[in-house]
Amino acid sequence: MPLHRPGPADRSSPQQLFDHVCGHARQAAVLASVEALLGWDEQTMMPPQAAAYRGTQAEAIATLAHRQRTDPVYGEELATLAAGPLARDGTPQVRTAIRLLRKDFEKHARVPARLVGALAKTCVEAQQAWVTARAASSWTTLEPWLRQVFDLKRELATCQMPDADPYDALLDDYEPGGRWPMIAAQFSRLRAEIVPLMQACAGSTRRPDDAVVHRHYPVADQQRFVREVATRIGFDFQRGRLDTTEHPFCSGVGPNDCRITTRWDAGSLSTALYGVLHEAGHGLYEQGLPTEWYGLPPGEAASLGIHESQSRLWENLVGRSRAFCDWCFPLAQAAFTQSLAEASADSMQQALMIVQPSLIRVEADEVTYNLHVMMRFDLERAVIHGDLDVADLPAAWNDRFACDFGFRPRTDAEGVLQDIHWSAGLIGYFPTYTLGNIFAAQLMAAARRDLPELDRDLAAGRFDGLLAWLRRHVHAYGRQYESAALVEQASGETVSERWLRDSLWQRYGEAYGLV
Amino acid sequence: MPLHRPGPADRSSPQQLFDHVCGHARQAAVLASVEALLGWDEQTMMPPQAAAYRGTQAEAIATLAHRQRTDPVYGEELATLAAGPLARDGTPQVRTAIRLLRKDFEKHARVPARLVGALAKTCVEAQQAWVTARAASSWTTLEPWLRQVFDLKRELATCQMPDADPYDALLDDYEPGGRWPMIAAQFSRLRAEIVPLMQACAGSTRRPDDAVVHRHYPVADQQRFVREVATRIGFDFQRGRLDTTEHPFCSGVGPNDCRITTRWDAGSLSTALYGVLHEAGHGLYEQGLPTEWYGLPPGEAASLGIHESQSRLWENLVGRSRAFCDWCFPLAQAAFTQSLAEASADSMQQALMIVQPSLIRVEADEVTYNLHVMMRFDLERAVIHGDLDVADLPAAWNDRFACDFGFRPRTDAEGVLQDIHWSAGLIGYFPTYTLGNIFAAQLMAAARRDLPELDRDLAAGRFDGLLAWLRRHVHAYGRQYESAALVEQASGETVSERWLRDSLWQRYGEAYGLV
Repeated sequence: MPLHRPGPADRSSPQQLFDHVCGHARQAAVLASVEALLGWDEQTMMPPQAAAYRGTQAEAIATLAHRQRTDPVYGEELATLAAGPLARDGTPQVRTAIRLLRKDFEKHARVPARLVGALAKTCVEAQQAWVTARAASSWTTLEPWLRQVFDLKRELATCQMPDADPYDALLDDYEPGGRWPMIAAQFSRLRAEIVPLMQACAGSTRRPDDAVVHRHYPVADQQRFVREVATRIGFDFQRGRLDTTEHPFCSGVGPNDCRITTRWDAGSLSTALYGVLHEAGHGLYEQGLPTEWYGLPPGEAASLGIHESQSRLWENLVGRSRAFCDWCFPLAQAAFTQSLAEASADSMQQALMIVQPSLIRVEADEVTYNLHVMMRFDLERAVIHGDLDVADLPAAWNDRFACDFGFRPRTDAEGVLQDIHWSAGLIGYFPTYTLGNIFAAQLMAAARRDLPELDRDLAAGRFDGLLAWLRRHVHAYGRQYESAALVEQASGETVSERWLRDSLWQRYGEAYGLV
Repeated sequence: MPLHRPGPADRSSPQQLFDHVCGHARQAAVLASVEALLGWDEQTMMPPQAAAYRGTQAEAIATLAHRQRTDPVYGEELATLAAGPLARDGTPQVRTAIRLLRKDFEKHARVPARLVGALAKTCVEAQQAWVTARAASSWTTLEPWLRQVFDLKRELATCQMPDADPYDALLDDYEPGGRWPMIAAQFSRLRAEIVPLMQACAGSTRRPDDAVVHRHYPVADQQRFVREVATRIGFDFQRGRLDTTEHPFCSGVGPNDCRITTRWDAGSLSTALYGVLHEAGHGLYEQGLPTEWYGLPPGEAASLGIHESQSRLWENLVGRSRAFCDWCFPLAQAAFTQSLAEASADSMQQALMIVQPSLIRVEADEVTYNLHVMMRFDLERAVIHGDLDVADLPAAWNDRFACDFGFRPRTDAEGVLQDIHWSAGLIGYFPTYTLGNIFAAQLMAAARRDLPELDRDLAAGRFDGLLAWLRRHVHAYGRQYESAALVEQASGETVSERWLRDSLWQRYGEAYGLV
């Protein structure tokens, strides 16, 4: 029985029925938010031996949320609404809510509760196995878990969208409306630009000096410093938190409860700072969604690609700019008097423009990052399509890596075991990282056009103009548009990878003296 | 519809029916554990503006747990089990499970879901109001919330046990089988001993010197130190955590996930140390309950009085002993070289034996603490019985306080607003604090009888003998016996306040030179 079902008298007019249906959907969102808290706590706080029971807890809540989302009466009510006057003549938000709640219902209702529970439980356990496997660089520890996860996800794809390509069906959970052939074509064009750019940088006689970011930066000082930076760009700590995890993330635990995490490295100024700029970028999006629509499509993120565009924009296009460094450097110098005594805003900005082929995605630079993503996109798609067996993932990983980067991982910990995503069931998720870079570059170009004083503002620590632009053109819409339409509307141009290509070639070309 | 209901084929034999019923009860426990996590997070981690939605989250999970606990089919199955062979011939654990699951079902099934939801939501909001009210010493801020809470709890009492006295009905949630007239009589005898003891200490020319615990103890060093002490007495950090809150507590978030909290005060060695000894005492009980019965009565605490007996035993009867100080002092001296350079185990132990009438319960000494508790017991009972209006609580509080302590609170923040309990719906809960002291003294006397080398062991930091005794005589039984029977069985004597009286007079009489 679903939560809070008022009597039929409440549902006599279209508006009453709409309110009732929204109440039902919001209750599912309450359960999803509790699930998010269980996940956040698991990563940040939970004692080690509590892991097994956490799986049971996650399974129970996921099962209840699924039951709420797939209640047949709710489905009938959505069908009634979809055929009624509000679906045609309601406000854009109301029409969006009806259309997408119905789409989500249709998807979810096709998935048996057994599969939902199995996925939740298996993924918690697989993530624990991943921790052990990565620490020991033991592929065989993870392989059986990954096989289970891929099998369950393939089953999920077939249930959710029986007529779609199974990879597109998974992609739809993260990038609604995304189609793999289009993404593959876009990525392929981009790869053909990025590999030469990486090689040109490697071959250049000029290489930015990054010694300054690799000095000693005490973690306690970093914690104060990055918190200050996150606050200044607009992250609201009255509605959010910052904690420590090995794999940084941003999680929404409620309309006013957005939690970001980071790693700390006393030998690096950039790990936590750019990690937090990234996650706070996600956080600004979460905090910018209309709270009055929380739990309903107009209050939800458009896609993970759009989500990632917000984090990348702040991390790379703002954070690595000369204007940002002009503002940030004096702040950093005050926080780290010793290590930054002899440095300058210019040396800081230079140090952030390194292109260096490397093994670990989360440590990759802005240019080569996309190569890491594209290979994961190709590999996971091959497994889902049955073209690659899970057992062959390590070899396929290493071959593809060598092809793009010119050298091979020495261990699986440096290779196929490095990411938690597949263990967590996040398949069809990786491409959203590079889609985010593509969207970010196009949005930033549009914002620059609309805000001619942007660099002067950033250099003065005035981030509110840019944030207001993003709120107005991106955040305020929630899921009202799919990502391509949203970016097109904000920028006035069809989505294309060319802004990312131009941005990378221009900025890194300059740093490496290629232009 | 309840979680995970297998088909009827699973329920054909009494054992199968029992397993099935236990599965159902365990699912309710999963939801209760998620509720506990929401509560823990609210107190320790949650951003300020997330409070309102946290009420919604708590209400949703409480409603689902209630529904699971009150499923009519489950009730019928429990009735069948109670009339069947396992209820007579099963193991003690099986008989306990059937008897108490049925008792719990009967209680819960009488409570409408509306009331459960309203209580959960109101209490979250009332606690937020309490934070504001206490900070501003504003009784009028809290009064309407407290009135709502008392009204809802009175309604709950009548629903749960319509034939019982309403205060006993509330008490039963915390101290199963407890009856207020018996407790009132016991407390009255104890009060007649404690007021004179407090006055005798105040009138003594000899007063222990406590200067040593009020020096500078850096919080970061305290954090390492108390963690070490908690570990040494047996608290397992693989299955638990220690965090910071204004009001310390211990919360079980799963069979292997026990979370304790404390306050920190750089001007005191004892605030955090004895706070953590107390909460870790609770934690040792939680960690000592049979995990294989988690979520079922044989795996649950016998009562809050028994729970408190474990915390008080470690805090006061172990922690303030000379033997414990002999072991603990060198450890403390190593942690706080400067403040403890000139001190000794003897001066530390002396400093812990102060009796000082004071306004705030959580800062009270071991002797006067019970006076704080007894007055709350009398006041809350008067409100529940309709003998005192919520509006008159501040005056009644101040009058009673003056009567026992000889002076009056200057503000409500120092008086009726000091505790979170009533706002949190914890009514019938306060008496379990002094019941815990009574049980602790009687159990410790029995343990001393059974472990003649106890002081030598404590002085050497060997706490495992005492812990094993508690595990065997208290923890292992879960809810198999009500508190009085459990203490009687462990000690071989009828429960009486005389061990507490003797312990206080002897130990404090010695410290103040009264004997």
